[in-house]
Parts: sequence; structure tokens; C-alpha cells
Amino acid sequence: MYRMVSIAEAQKTVLNAIEPLPSISLGLSDAVGHILGEDVIAREPLPPFPASIKDGYAVVSADGPGDYDVAFEALAGTAAGQLKAGSVAYITTGAPLPDGADAVVQVENTEKLPAGPDGQQRVRIVKPAKGPGDDVRALGSDIAAGEVVLAKDSLVGAAEIGLLATVGAATVQVRRKARVAVLSTGDELVEPDQETLGPGQIRDANRFMLAAAARSAGCDVTDLGIARDDPAEVEAKFGEAIAQGVDVLLTSGGVSVGDRDFIKPILERQGTVHFGKVCMKPGKPLTFATLDGAAGSSGRGLVVFGLPGNPVSSIVTFNLVVLPALRAMAGWAEPRLRRVHARTQSAIKLDPERPEYHRASLSWHRTGESAGELAAASTGGQISSRLLSMRSANALLELPAVQGVLPAGSLVSALLIDDLSAMPVPEDIPLVVPSW
Amino acid sequence: MYRMVSIAEAQKTVLNAIEPLPSISLGLSDAVGHILGEDVIAREPLPPFPASIKDGYAVVSADGPGDYDVAFEALAGTAAGQLKAGSVAYITTGAPLPDGADAVVQVENTEKLPAGPDGQQRVRIVKPAKGPGDDVRALGSDIAAGEVVLAKDSLVGAAEIGLLATVGAATVQVRRKARVAVLSTGDELVEPDQETLGPGQIRDANRFMLAAAARSAGCDVTDLGIARDDPAEVEAKFGEAIAQGVDVLLTSGGVSVGDRDFIKPILERQGTVHFGKVCMKPGKPLTFATLDGAAGSSGRGLVVFGLPGNPVSSIVTFNLVVLPALRAMAGWAEPRLRRVHARTQSAIKLDPERPEYHRASLSWHRTGESAGELAAASTGGQISSRLLSMRSANALLELPAVQGVLPAGSLVSALLIDDLSAMPVPEDIPLVVPSW
Repeated sequence: MYRMVSIAEAQKTVLNAIEPLPSISLGLSDAVGHILGEDVIAREPLPPFPASIKDGYAVVSADGPGDYDVAFEALAGTAAGQLKAGSVAYITTGAPLPDGADAVVQVENTEKLPAGPDGQQRVRIVKPAKGPGDDVRALGSDIAAGEVVLAKDSLVGAAEIGLLATVGAATVQVRRKARVAVLSTGDELVEPDQETLGPGQIRDANRFMLAAAARSAGCDVTDLGIARDDPAEVEAKFGEAIAQGVDVLLTSGGVSVGDRDFIKPILERQGTVHFGKVCMKPGKPLTFATLDGAAGSSGRGLVVFGLPGNPVSSIVTFNLVVLPALRAMAGWAEPRLRRVHARTQSAIKLDPERPEYHRASLSWHRTGESAGELAAASTGGQISSRLLSMRSANALLELPAVQGVLPAGSLVSALLIDDLSAMPVPEDIPLVVPSW
Repeated sequence: MYRMVSIAEAQKTVLNAIEPLPSISLGLSDAVGHILGEDVIAREPLPPFPASIKDGYAVVSADGPGDYDVAFEALAGTAAGQLKAGSVAYITTGAPLPDGADAVVQVENTEKLPAGPDGQQRVRIVKPAKGPGDDVRALGSDIAAGEVVLAKDSLVGAAEIGLLATVGAATVQVRRKARVAVLSTGDELVEPDQETLGPGQIRDANRFMLAAAARSAGCDVTDLGIARDDPAEVEAKFGEAIAQGVDVLLTSGGVSVGDRDFIKPILERQGTVHFGKVCMKPGKPLTFATLDGAAGSSGRGLVVFGLPGNPVSSIVTFNLVVLPALRAMAGWAEPRLRRVHARTQSAIKLDPERPEYHRASLSWHRTGESAGELAAASTGGQISSRLLSMRSANALLELPAVQGVLPAGSLVSALLIDDLSAMPVPEDIPLVVPSW
């Protein structure tokens, strides 16, 4: 029998038991979604030369307005020329400012004059430069030589890829992500492509759902298929995971209290079960174990999450416990789900015994002069077999274990489980034009 | 010369010019991130039989507490047996309720008794079922036969994959995503792996950044490399994009007003330029064109976005205009960036001429009894060459074109450009326990 631990204790136990995976070297384009394993430093300043901000004319700013010979063209990608006072050079955006010049006048502030008899190009400076440095990016003004452009432990997104390219970091050290295996257990399970269900059968949803969730976290996923309710078959699948060198094994089903729940006894024989029962709804049978030194590259143990068989329980516990573990392995400094606050849109009956993670869809609302807030719409019936309660859910509301009904309009904590940049837009969210 | 259009007009023009791409058939595991092209309907009810919610004993609820023979075992994955009143059947979670039984008593509410002299297993029902249906999921109680479990136009995430598997949708119709090509232009550009920069050279960042951003939106990306400032070379690259059948071409650079800005003239010759100047900061030279019938599968035209060469301008215009276009092609009903509201953490100087998209990092704050709000930290100097202003940015603040300084603590509109589930956590966000 397992002691029932709190969800906070379970999360802490998991995060204490695992370590970030080692760094690997990846090419620029493969680094997205990874955490940097090193500081990335600029070798040169950017721009590496004083550069024009505009298309126009490089000038000596003290020369002021008037008509000038266009001495030469200063084009992007060429070495800086030499400009004498009393003349100007045509210059394109990003081109090196000629030596001798100290400012740029944009083309809109000039007038092209007829060429001289010798073919000499001439231009009228109508609105002169305000002074030295006008429309010039000084050497190193964007990035100084030696500057840390991306610190170790930063998450690499598209903009960071741009920065890596800028400073010539064509390969970069990043944390490896966990290799994950998924295994479903249960005599009742058949594959999704089975057209007709036999007596007592249902289709396996968890394996595909958990694999998709792990892939969304950037993990490579190995599919171990379905194990029948037979300890030898389950053990053989564990052996397969170990042989393949995965870091994390996600099982679903077989962790309850029934005669056919083989997962915990096997984990006890092969390693350490850190907890086997969590005070949460859904997800009570959630089990966490480590098989020390059993497998994994660099001699790490295999981390096993025994997720409940009910589909909602399996994906909720994935989000609450497995995902932070995968993020911690990937090097995230703050691997936990992000907590925000939201206003409930309907009354919610609470569970008196276990804190509930109520699936909800958050959207942004703003009325009157308030700062706006997140409105939480319940996804409906929350029984752990009803996967429709996860459809379109982007948050888990953290509801306390209390007897009673939480009225509509209550402020609750919510953990983000999906990208709010795809959240529902139930109304036209107004543009706020600040007044002051 | 191009008329300067507002960003709203630019966005509208783009969304009016493009259509969702056709649907394709994908296997279950490949459908993540796609929009469904069809309603997905459950053929059978779920559960397909009355199923036990617990490990325990199937009973005739009217029998009440007392000692019973365990007539047989009702295991998951087997056909339902036949139970007679006055006896019980051992049952596991998810197993079909035997005919004749009408409730389940969980094992925790029972005591195992010594077997009878004939080896007959016996059990004491200590706490009986409350009535018919107790701890039983009725047939179809999770999903009714014929129910639309996922509607056309839904976005497929991990939970939706689970639903597809559940109802046996092993392949599914989803909208195709755009095939995107990226091309950088400019004599000054060299590849990121070039160790030492020559005179006037900088490394190309935009191509890698835009490719990463397009891939993050789920698009396949073709890299067309760098075109020199030579119309023939640029045109050849356009031809390459057309030959490869891409849907969208993203160029960067060459759209300004200088002599070397070849992109717009080429687009005018080959198709229709819908706008070539947008009233926004950064990103004024943003250009949008369609090359009708030039290429693309199913005879669609090639959509071309001529993005500015400054790296910040290119990624900001990507987010504001290209990403909604890619989402619209992928079938999103609401392809625009999500707008929220945020409180500025510092004073921000405004641009008197163009609305500014100020890069910021949003994080959740809550003090006192408020609902909490998003705090917007500016990413610093906003010059369009300074890509560091995009580092860690997860939002674009929509600042009006006004002379003056917006004080700290102002409420502003913000467009989400990154996943808030990775947002910075500057403080320990409190758990709200609602009281009522």
C-alpha cells in the first residue's frame, strides 16, 4: 500500500530525482526549442563598421544644405571609400559609411540634379543632417564585441536562431532532450485502426495522445505498443525500453489496486517506486519510479511514469508531472507549468476529498476600464474517462478539496497546458489606446 | 511610389488575397498542429458497454451488504458474463458489467473472506452500492454513437489525437500547410559559418530566423540561399521557388527605396503588388504580391512577402502579416495574433509618425486581491537592426503614433508572438484558493 502524497510533494519528488541531460552540439537550424548549454558570445561588433541606416547620401554633416558632387557610390557589401568634405557619396542601407563622412541624409531629403557637362552626378541636399552620426549606426551599436548575446540556459526560438546566425554560431551546444517510450497496458485495448470492436474491447487512445504530447515537448518517441495484462509481457516491454536506451518510459494503465495491476510490482522488483498514489483528481494512481543504472546513455537510470489508464487521467498527469520532468531534463530553469489566474464562467461542483484539476478553456476578456482578465470556460463533465473534457482545453484550474459548489465569477488559479496564442477569441478584443 | 497603407489595411489585404489550402489525408500521429477538414464522428458509443469505474465487485445493488459468493471474474477485454442475484463477480476497472449486475462496489469497501470448503471465493460487502449505476459508466456516457467528437476546423493537439484514436479515425482529413521558401538578398550577406567577415560584410540572419519561424508554424521550408544584388539572380531564385511548387516565398532585403532594391520591380513585372509600404515601425517597406497562376499545386498563385532586410523588421512583419497568412492557409478560422492587455513596466518613448510594435516580455503578476495582470517588460533599444530586442520577446505592444513618452504603468494592447507557457516567472505566482 502506498502513502497518498500531495501533488506538490509528487512534483518535488520527481524534480529532485532527475537531472538535466548532457549538452550536445547541434547545427543552427536544429537548435530551435532547445536550451543553450553555453553562453554565446559575439566575436565581432555589429555592425562591424559604421553603417548607413537609410538609402541616401553619406555627407560631412558640417557641410550643410546645398548642391554637391556625388563622388562615388558606397554600396552594401563593399569596403568603405574615402569621402572629401564638399562632396557626398550615394549610399545604400547597411553599406559602410565612407571614411571622412560622419552622417547620412536620406534620399527623401534630397533632389537629384542634372549631371554636369563631364557626366558628374550631382545632388541637392534639401534637409541636411542634424549633426554627426545622423542616420548612421555606430560600430558595435547593436552588439558589442565580446557581448554575451545569448546566455547559457536560454530557450532558443526563431529570434534566437537569428542571433546565433548573426554572431556566426553555426553550431551550438544545447541540452539534449529526453528520449521517451510509450507503452499501453490492458487486455481490453486494440489499435485505433481496428474497425469493429470485439466484446469488452476499446481502442487505445493513451499511447498516441502521450506520444503526441511528448513530441510537442520536442522529444523523440518510441512506440512500444500494447502489453497484455501479463507480467512477463510487461517486463519484456520494459526490457525493450532499456535496450533502446530511452530516458523516460511512460506506461498507462495497470497502476490501480486491482489483481491485474502489474506495473507497480514490476517497478518495485526492478527499481525504486518513489510514490504510487497522489491526492489529485483525476490521476490518483499516478506512479513514479526510477530504475537505477538500468539503462540510458551515460549510465543514467530509466525514469518511469506509471500513468493511470483513464485517458483524461493520463494526459492530466502528463501535464502536471511528466512535462515538468521532460523540461527539467531539457535544462529548463523553471520547468513547472505557468500559473495565471482566471475568472470562472459557470458554477463548478468541488470534490470534497481531492484537489481537482478542472479542464478549462481560457480566453481574454476586457470590459470597461479594467486591465482585462482571463475567463475560464469549463469543458464540461469531468469524469476521467471522458476525453472530451480535454478537447480545446488550454488550462487546468486548480480547485481546492472542499465540499460545495464554487459559484460562477470566482477567481481561481489556472495552469497553462497549451499555447494561448491559439486561444479562443469569443469576442473582438479591443485595441487599447493608452491616454495620459 | 507606393501609397502607405495602415497595418490593418495590410492585414486585411493579405487575408482577402489568400484561401485555405486543400485538405489531405494524414495518419493519426501526423495530424498534430493541423486543422481538421472534416467532422469526426464516433461510430460506436463509448464505453461500448456498461463498464466498471473501479476495481471491485459487480453486484445486484438491491442485494445490499453481506457475505457473497464470488461467482466469476469479469476482466477487462472479455465479454460480459451473467450474474445471478445473491452473488457477485470480481471486476476490474474498465471491464464490462456482467448482465444482471447493476452496480460496482469498490474493493476498498469489501473484505475478502476465507474460501469455502469447495474452494469457492467469498467476499463481504461492507459498504454497499448506493443504488443502480453506482461506479458504472453507462453505455455511451462518455461519447454517444453518432456524436461529432471533433468538428471541422478544430485544431488538433495531443488530446484531439486521443479522441481520434478513441473513435478509430486512424487517418483523418486535415488542411495542408503552406510550403514556404526563404530567400535573402544583398551583396553584404555571407553565410553564418563564415568565420571572418570581409570588408562591408555581415552574416545572414533573416533566412535562418524566418525558416525557424515558418517551421514553428508547421510549414515545410525550402532554403533558396542568398541572392546577390542583381535582378537576374533574384529572378532566377523566384523561378526556383515556382519550379519547386512552394505556396509562399519570403524574401528579405531589397524592398526599400534605394537603387539596389530590385524586389518590387520584379514583382510588378511578374504579378501584382498589393502594397509596398506600411505605416508601422519597424517594417515600413513591407511588400505583398501575388504571382497569379505562376505556380503552386492546384494552380494557385505564388504568394510573395517582400520583408525588410533589417532583422527585427523581418521577424516583426513575419509575425504581424505572414503568420496570420500561413494560419489562414492552414485553415484557422481566426488566424490573427491573439490580443491581450498588459501593464508597461517602464516609460516608453513613442514614435510620432508610425504606430510602433514594441517588443516586450510578458509575465503574470498578482498583488493583493486583483485578478492579476500581465506585466510588459520592454526588451530595450528598439532600433530595427538590433535583434537583441527580439530576444525573449513573447509579445508586440501596439503603441500609437503620438509625440511623447508613455509613462510606466500604462495599460497597452499586446499581441502574443510566443507561447506563454514558457513565459518568464519573475516571482512566485501565488495559488489562489477561492473563498465563498
